Amino acid sequence: MDHVARVRRLQSALPEAKLDLLLITHLPNLRYLCGFTGSAGALLVCRDGAVLFTDGRYKTQAREEVRNARIVIGKQSAVLAAAERVAVSDHDTKRGGRGLPALGIEGEWMSAGMRDRVASALRGKARVRSAPPLVERARMVKDAEEVRLIRNAVELGASLFAVARQTIEPGVSELAVAAAMEYEARSQGAEGMSFPTIIASGERSAMIHGRASEARIPRRGFVVCDFGIILAGYCSDRTRTVHVGRASSEAREFYGAVLAAQQAAIAAVRPGVTASEVDAAARNVLRRRKLARYFTHSTGHGLGLEIHEAPRVADGQAQTLEAGMVITIEPGAYVAGQWGVRIEDVVVVTASGCEVLTPADKQLVVI
Amino acid sequence: MDHVARVRRLQSALPEAKLDLLLITHLPNLRYLCGFTGSAGALLVCRDGAVLFTDGRYKTQAREEVRNARIVIGKQSAVLAAAERVAVSDHDTKRGGRGLPALGIEGEWMSAGMRDRVASALRGKARVRSAPPLVERARMVKDAEEVRLIRNAVELGASLFAVARQTIEPGVSELAVAAAMEYEARSQGAEGMSFPTIIASGERSAMIHGRASEARIPRRGFVVCDFGIILAGYCSDRTRTVHVGRASSEAREFYGAVLAAQQAAIAAVRPGVTASEVDAAARNVLRRRKLARYFTHSTGHGLGLEIHEAPRVADGQAQTLEAGMVITIEPGAYVAGQWGVRIEDVVVVTASGCEVLTPADKQLVVI
Repeated sequence: MDHVARVRRLQSALPEAKLDLLLITHLPNLRYLCGFTGSAGALLVCRDGAVLFTDGRYKTQAREEVRNARIVIGKQSAVLAAAERVAVSDHDTKRGGRGLPALGIEGEWMSAGMRDRVASALRGKARVRSAPPLVERARMVKDAEEVRLIRNAVELGASLFAVARQTIEPGVSELAVAAAMEYEARSQGAEGMSFPTIIASGERSAMIHGRASEARIPRRGFVVCDFGIILAGYCSDRTRTVHVGRASSEAREFYGAVLAAQQAAIAAVRPGVTASEVDAAARNVLRRRKLARYFTHSTGHGLGLEIHEAPRVADGQAQTLEAGMVITIEPGAYVAGQWGVRIEDVVVVTASGCEVLTPADKQLVVI
Repeated sequence: MDHVARVRRLQSALPEAKLDLLLITHLPNLRYLCGFTGSAGALLVCRDGAVLFTDGRYKTQAREEVRNARIVIGKQSAVLAAAERVAVSDHDTKRGGRGLPALGIEGEWMSAGMRDRVASALRGKARVRSAPPLVERARMVKDAEEVRLIRNAVELGASLFAVARQTIEPGVSELAVAAAMEYEARSQGAEGMSFPTIIASGERSAMIHGRASEARIPRRGFVVCDFGIILAGYCSDRTRTVHVGRASSEAREFYGAVLAAQQAAIAAVRPGVTASEVDAAARNVLRRRKLARYFTHSTGHGLGLEIHEAPRVADGQAQTLEAGMVITIEPGAYVAGQWGVRIEDVVVVTASGCEVLTPADKQLVVI
């Protein structure tokens, strides 16, 4: 990972954001900028360098992982240690007497209470204000190394569907299916699941967030399987919906509509279109089949170090897609009390369109 | 769960906190107060009632789970919907013209950015300020139903150690041990693990947060196994350290010291002592054996709906223990590059001392 270049790009964005310093406290952002994977730390980015603050538990780890920042091991909160460093630094002199330096914080990630403490530690020393989401914006576009890591995660994650197909049968609990998939994931080296595994069978398939439960797979009906893993820090996310027992023509048609919507959205992905247009491509297919009102969530989301990150692929999202963005495409349709279907792939935006990272088998599987 | 009584106690604490309204946004607090388990919601507690705000995804679920609050389903952020409700309510009249009503927020859980938006929505309508941790304080003391649920979680969680004992052998990866334990947990109905499973073998046993890795169990050395599950929303947490291959007398002595420290801390637990005194009981045993400097973390923490909650059992913690508090007791000692040992139980404070919920086998297991 080219952490040096990442921090440099961030530093070059500080003047336009009217910031002298930026305090990074959101752990995925910290990892993105300097490779640190500990659970407690803060990175202070100045215009000419960066300092990582953490505690004794992470002394060895920080030294192994971080090459592009000085490391300060403290006894107290890493965030407050960083604030105190700002307080004692003579930024004012360096700035040629242009008043107090401006410290940006990540206002959407830092708690209100912590901001109060930081502001209090810096009273008369620095102006504290919420920075724009500079790191989130940078993270939207993945570099080649990141795409490689996401591809690895998506491939391992996708392989769990074979376990689901082998495990799903009438009478087996949803939880047993999830347990078998998660065992396979861990055995193959996944650090964990990227979200609670969804195995939603029968009427439960209409629940968008139908986490695997004690419910038994019925003799007939859809089973939505939505699952993801974390590998080398990067997330995967895949949904496949299978049908247990003979699928009626109505069920096949319903499935086919969602599949057509998903394919239309994938076909719409290319640099220059807005996230909203991709969402509309899926929604329009379902609208023509009078199913739009059953599609009650957005079409997708960015994914990388976090399972949900920018951009959102949803109605009203003006963000323009760029080559290197990695997003999910996952339309669904849900009729409460009856059934639901969702189909999801991970795609990377390319120069001319997109590449689907998830293996492409999407015809209805009947078990 | 007696959610009605919990909200009533909270309401009765509002006047002393000089608050007219309290906005609960931390999800475990929401669950504690009204039973709602969705991933997006906000509970507005007034002096005479409570309103849960959530979105369409959780309409059915909220109606099934929540009995003691009105439910408002909105399209926007639940927190902002709650703020707008406060803005349009005529609290001023009800308060007999005593100025703007005071709305407490959970400052340690709400982001700085969200507090700014809430404050902006309420400008001229209410004063927004950080409330004391009223719900966290209430949650420290568990009622009988909660102790029953924690007992269930601790029993299921503890049973995973049998899987670890069967799986650990030289050459097997730490990850394979964790995978087998997690599979057992899920198969028995756990909702998930309460934290990333730690299997730290050989020199890695000196790493306090040694998550199961690709490392192979060596032919000889300690293996720290620290693991917990979530069952019906409540967490378990247990650590056992085993020894692979013949244990030297030095290793046995080291293990014995940590065990003596753990037993001393358990013996110190009773209503009226401070958390700091319990911590000191463990630390003093290790100090007498010249091992205090290897005990580099705190003795324990509260546990319940969250894996880490109040009280902290650490040096300087003046919190007095009360009957019904549930805490972990988990001293350890770690010599970098050599080895580490940690032993952990969950205990509930009783009228006269404490009950250890974790099964009591703590003699050194040699594999």
